[in-house]
Amino acid sequence: MELEIKLRMQNRVETILCPPGANLLELLHQYGYSVYSPCGGKGRCGKCLVRVSGSAVELTDPERQHLTQAQIEDGIRLACQLKVTGNLEIDLSPTDQLVILADDSGGDVQLNPHVRQEEIRLEQPRIDQQDDYWQRIQQQLGRKEIASQALCRLGELEQKLDLLVTFSDGKVLDIDDPQAVAAKSGYYGLAVDIGTTTIVLYLLNLTNGAQVGVHAFANPQSRYGGDVITRIDYTINRADGVQKLQDTLLESLNQGIQHLVRKHGIDTTKIYHAVFVGNTVMLHTLLGVNAASIANAPYVPIFTDGMEFSARELGLGIHPDGIVELLPCVSGYVGADIIADLLAADFESNQWRLLVDIGTNGEIILGNKEKMFACSAAAGPAFEGANIAFGMSGIPGAIASYQLESSGEIRYQAIANQEPQGICGSGLVDIIASLYSRGFLSSTGAFQTGLSITEYQGQPAYRVVPGKEIFLTQKDVREYQLAAGAIAAGIQVLMSEAAITETAIDRLYLAGGFGNYINPESAAVLGLLPQSLLTKVVKLGNGAGAGAKHYLLDRSARARVDKLKQRIKYVELSARADFQEHFMGAMLFPEIRA
Amino acid sequence: MELEIKLRMQNRVETILCPPGANLLELLHQYGYSVYSPCGGKGRCGKCLVRVSGSAVELTDPERQHLTQAQIEDGIRLACQLKVTGNLEIDLSPTDQLVILADDSGGDVQLNPHVRQEEIRLEQPRIDQQDDYWQRIQQQLGRKEIASQALCRLGELEQKLDLLVTFSDGKVLDIDDPQAVAAKSGYYGLAVDIGTTTIVLYLLNLTNGAQVGVHAFANPQSRYGGDVITRIDYTINRADGVQKLQDTLLESLNQGIQHLVRKHGIDTTKIYHAVFVGNTVMLHTLLGVNAASIANAPYVPIFTDGMEFSARELGLGIHPDGIVELLPCVSGYVGADIIADLLAADFESNQWRLLVDIGTNGEIILGNKEKMFACSAAAGPAFEGANIAFGMSGIPGAIASYQLESSGEIRYQAIANQEPQGICGSGLVDIIASLYSRGFLSSTGAFQTGLSITEYQGQPAYRVVPGKEIFLTQKDVREYQLAAGAIAAGIQVLMSEAAITETAIDRLYLAGGFGNYINPESAAVLGLLPQSLLTKVVKLGNGAGAGAKHYLLDRSARARVDKLKQRIKYVELSARADFQEHFMGAMLFPEIRA
Repeated sequence: MELEIKLRMQNRVETILCPPGANLLELLHQYGYSVYSPCGGKGRCGKCLVRVSGSAVELTDPERQHLTQAQIEDGIRLACQLKVTGNLEIDLSPTDQLVILADDSGGDVQLNPHVRQEEIRLEQPRIDQQDDYWQRIQQQLGRKEIASQALCRLGELEQKLDLLVTFSDGKVLDIDDPQAVAAKSGYYGLAVDIGTTTIVLYLLNLTNGAQVGVHAFANPQSRYGGDVITRIDYTINRADGVQKLQDTLLESLNQGIQHLVRKHGIDTTKIYHAVFVGNTVMLHTLLGVNAASIANAPYVPIFTDGMEFSARELGLGIHPDGIVELLPCVSGYVGADIIADLLAADFESNQWRLLVDIGTNGEIILGNKEKMFACSAAAGPAFEGANIAFGMSGIPGAIASYQLESSGEIRYQAIANQEPQGICGSGLVDIIASLYSRGFLSSTGAFQTGLSITEYQGQPAYRVVPGKEIFLTQKDVREYQLAAGAIAAGIQVLMSEAAITETAIDRLYLAGGFGNYINPESAAVLGLLPQSLLTKVVKLGNGAGAGAKHYLLDRSARARVDKLKQRIKYVELSARADFQEHFMGAMLFPEIRA
Repeated sequence: MELEIKLRMQNRVETILCPPGANLLELLHQYGYSVYSPCGGKGRCGKCLVRVSGSAVELTDPERQHLTQAQIEDGIRLACQLKVTGNLEIDLSPTDQLVILADDSGGDVQLNPHVRQEEIRLEQPRIDQQDDYWQRIQQQLGRKEIASQALCRLGELEQKLDLLVTFSDGKVLDIDDPQAVAAKSGYYGLAVDIGTTTIVLYLLNLTNGAQVGVHAFANPQSRYGGDVITRIDYTINRADGVQKLQDTLLESLNQGIQHLVRKHGIDTTKIYHAVFVGNTVMLHTLLGVNAASIANAPYVPIFTDGMEFSARELGLGIHPDGIVELLPCVSGYVGADIIADLLAADFESNQWRLLVDIGTNGEIILGNKEKMFACSAAAGPAFEGANIAFGMSGIPGAIASYQLESSGEIRYQAIANQEPQGICGSGLVDIIASLYSRGFLSSTGAFQTGLSITEYQGQPAYRVVPGKEIFLTQKDVREYQLAAGAIAAGIQVLMSEAAITETAIDRLYLAGGFGNYINPESAAVLGLLPQSLLTKVVKLGNGAGAGAKHYLLDRSARARVDKLKQRIKYVELSARADFQEHFMGAMLFPEIRA
């Protein structure tokens, strides 16, 4: 007997079939639906929310639901904890919206792409000048290799003398008739930022440098775990796990490319270059490389070098001889996304500069034009909403900013101005900073008298919005302290390594989604960021995406990237006694200045 | 209604189905049977012989059969002229044996392959030494690129420190566990000689340089024409012609590789390098490149440079990251097979040396260690049996050597000591030289009185073997004169170009199948080769195959090949007035010396 499940999404309804007893989350993943499940379906993170109509389901572990009474009454359940026992209707919309940071600070980049296109004219061959066609092309472009398919194209052009040649420094990738319609539409490149949570594709016209389109979507690997460690665990437990991660990722990338080219009326074979950035684990999974060695000490990746392949070799749906490049990583936990951040920032200064990119890990770079140090502080997923009672990622309904006035009045903003449903990272920092500023939290993070405290899941809890079932628990404050303490301590360690103090730093770059949305003043109040740098903050927006685009448009960025890769000294925090000392201190909130 | 045709081959019988009225040759090609048909099925060459049992066939053009009465009585027909009208039994054996020259003169080659395999041991990563695995490998092997699949393998090996690395100068192709059984079986390379008629695959063990096996088979492109021009014509007339030529060729290569690896118990993924030689048109078709521009003046190919691709890019069934190399060609009619001949020969001398490789074209190289000249004399297919009444290629039953004693006694040898059925190239030279030596041919090639002359197809004809229906016609002698005259004139032109005479030449290399079997004395009697060089002949055997193997085993051959490609000056005979003069003279047989 097959059961029927009707799936209601934002704009459509689909029906899938399953045997009785199927696990709903596994089923959804199996059918290709992206459901955010950062704990990998273990019932711990409470994120894979669906709304169930009908009672033909069975909870595998009612204790693990972490749901409010209101949610339960509303039919909300964790998909991972449901066994299907009869025909059902499921509303997926609680999970399928994600606010994604695809803007970036931009900045002027010179158009000088690695892949170029030139119209050339060959001399008419003569019986006394029998140089072959490929020789004649090289006489104009310099000595190069050529893709076999480009040779075929050259042959198909039947001795035409006017040619449109697409080439990189080392290789001719394609040859076309400049009179052909398709040839006149320009040629394109992709910059791709593979985040653990979100993937952003930028389609750029390499003829004029214009951004043709951008497409962002949730990383479908989330179905195998929300953070890199859970995904690596998945690969350790399943023989085909590494392959699954790669297949899932590549498939979504190719769909994303299709979406972009259809929308903008472009032929995929006119895309000749794709530049990828992402953290080290994401880039391992992109190539189908086992990243297990990154998960455990001594955290050694399989590769960190920049890589270059043909699209054919990787299976990416652009021109098969198109160049796929991965920017280099620094270490297992300082990835190519940070190298890309650095391209969007300016470290070619005599002054020291600090860059902080906070996600599950806080990657920190401290450097000037001579020396650079990098570390990764294991902040944990608190800033991304995990391990926080009402934590959620930056999706509509998440409280993203929050202020508790001295009058007791509360001002807050939920993303997309929707009804508040939980708290994302920047909201968490604001709430805790508000409470601390008002004296309702001690410097050790304990709730103080004067604050109206209730209880949630056995924890002392602060009702964040009056009349709403959204709480900040004492445990949430601890989670924040662990996360923020690690980052603040990381900054301290790099300053010792560079033998400088805060005063030597003239710029603080904040990168990544959280860095963009965070209120730096709140972060400084809590000591997450150095107080003295408040006036020196530059928000990079999606620095990784901007860096990838920069790299795509200007091949001189290669030399800068190579230099960065060589210059950056990675500092392993777990190996340093001083990190533990700084960490203990940094968990305390700093004294409040007058 | 479907008709049934039983096909009898050397060791097996197969049955195919067809509609009434199907052309037998097309049908055989359609089902993948390789039937030699150099004229492309036009009923001109008389080569696509089959033996028909039953009368359910219809001749489309009885005039075009060019068959002897004996053959007709024996049921022999031209497949291209048969329409199938009922169930049939067809014997394919007259066409499916080919004597192929896969021996070569060999010679000592140093084992120093381009693709190498090394067992390395990495240092144990430590928390204070976090270099990634790929960095550690490069620290031992030098800076290189790496194939993405090799990175995956490295990841799969789960932090093993003992690694077996397969790499070229620039790139790591594969990584394995040296303890794995498959890793212990060595690694392999292929040298491939793609002749217009015959393909030879050599499988070499790159661990020790040993030749593991050799597999020769007819070039299946023959179904689209026996010579390169007919095949190019086919591509001009059919939109998918170029693709067909490539597909047919690649499919047979991959089958050939499968045959070899199964026979020798080797895994195809242990083959990491394939070196291809062949004439310029064959190499174009290997890559799927239109060769039409070679067929017409000014005979300019699409490419002549050496090429390097991954097996994945070409679709060759070895390790997907294995290197596929094509040796460079000199011009449209002096191909990589001649460059390979030169690797097997020695032109690094102060003395002048001459190399002649006679097939449909006679490729001629004259040079010393400073200068080299090349030309291609359009000999036509006479030496391969086409356009000769009883001509045939070097298959069993072909008269390959022939002597007419002054006593009138005839000595001859047919290949494989079979009943003589026709005359191959070396036999043709011997017969004409014998007749000329005995005074039965004038220096202009006319039959002289004293020879018993009969008539065949309206031509004066000499019965080659008493009692057998095998004739040499007056027209055959003319065909020979045209072919030989072109080659002799080519040699003359190169000598003028080098400003030398025969006496300056200290070695004459004969390459290719015909060169190996020809009786140099007969060739000298007729002026095909200079008389004074008779004592200086060195037969290279299959020089092209030997050169390809040499290149595979010793990467220093690359520098030699590059130098040859640069040093050789191509002389286009059709553009030279002196060629015509020499040609007219060279068609006359030289005076017989005392």
